Amino acid sequence: MRVLGVDPGLTRCGVGVVEQTPGGRPSLIEAGVVRTPPDMDPSRRLLVIEQGLEQWLTKFEPQAVAVERVFAQQNLHSVTGTAQAAGVAMLVAARHNLPVVTHTPTEVKAAITGSGGADKAQVGAMVTRILRLEGPPRPADAADAVALALCHLWRGGANNRYAAAQAAATRKVAS
Amino acid sequence: MRVLGVDPGLTRCGVGVVEQTPGGRPSLIEAGVVRTPPDMDPSRRLLVIEQGLEQWLTKFEPQAVAVERVFAQQNLHSVTGTAQAAGVAMLVAARHNLPVVTHTPTEVKAAITGSGGADKAQVGAMVTRILRLEGPPRPADAADAVALALCHLWRGGANNRYAAAQAAATRKVAS
Repeated sequence: MRVLGVDPGLTRCGVGVVEQTPGGRPSLIEAGVVRTPPDMDPSRRLLVIEQGLEQWLTKFEPQAVAVERVFAQQNLHSVTGTAQAAGVAMLVAARHNLPVVTHTPTEVKAAITGSGGADKAQVGAMVTRILRLEGPPRPADAADAVALALCHLWRGGANNRYAAAQAAATRKVAS
Repeated sequence: MRVLGVDPGLTRCGVGVVEQTPGGRPSLIEAGVVRTPPDMDPSRRLLVIEQGLEQWLTKFEPQAVAVERVFAQQNLHSVTGTAQAAGVAMLVAARHNLPVVTHTPTEVKAAITGSGGADKAQVGAMVTRILRLEGPPRPADAADAVALALCHLWRGGANNRYAAAQAAATRKVAS
């Protein structure tokens, strides 16, 4: 299973690709950012983000895309641009017919560190450890995107186990 | 000058095309909505909006696109989806290499009715009068998109007159 995580943003859109084979450990395929100049027209910035994410999807061929869920409460100043970048990421994934899931920052922190209140340094340290890297992916937006992809792998795994348990229970009742 | 106005939304994305020749009165070319089913995956809804707006741009060939500016303060519940739809509209326009401008609801109301605090009925009545229609475009999202396009025509016009006046003043000083 290969997942592309996207930490949406107009100036730096974090991207991270993580892979995990059944029963194996997750490994980092690639991490980076799609940048757009702050003085560029907002509609053109969205176009640059679209083209950048399109390249990531074409090059790394993930099976799912995880996008950080944007909340209006987070940062009133930048939330509109962030939501627009998230929308473009979802659109590009949909065009590739990939499943798109959104995870909140709290869900990501909890999945990676065990605590929804963890800070960026803790998340970075755990990402480094989980993927056996020499240091957290840089810049921070890339590390966040990798954490998001890991969160998705694991939450997906838990959901699958839950679904399997449910199916097993149904079979037990029926027999 | 032909302007396409977009009142962004996931369920109903209002679209209106208005044209005005220099010195002439504005006329309505077409108004309608791009709809997406509420039970559809959000990423697929954005794809439907993209494809719908793409058809409007190809069919009516506007020279500018006006999109309602989304504020985080407006409606915390739906703002993320609205911002994402707005982002898709901006992206599609940028892909057609069209200028994209955003106007706030207050700017639109003030441009159409003279009052930034006007209600929907007043805006609809003025749109009907300005464009000599039998009634306001329906549904309301289509009427809002038409009002947005009109607002853009007029604000653009005022900017152009201001630029012309500035240029005239510069010539006067230089002579």
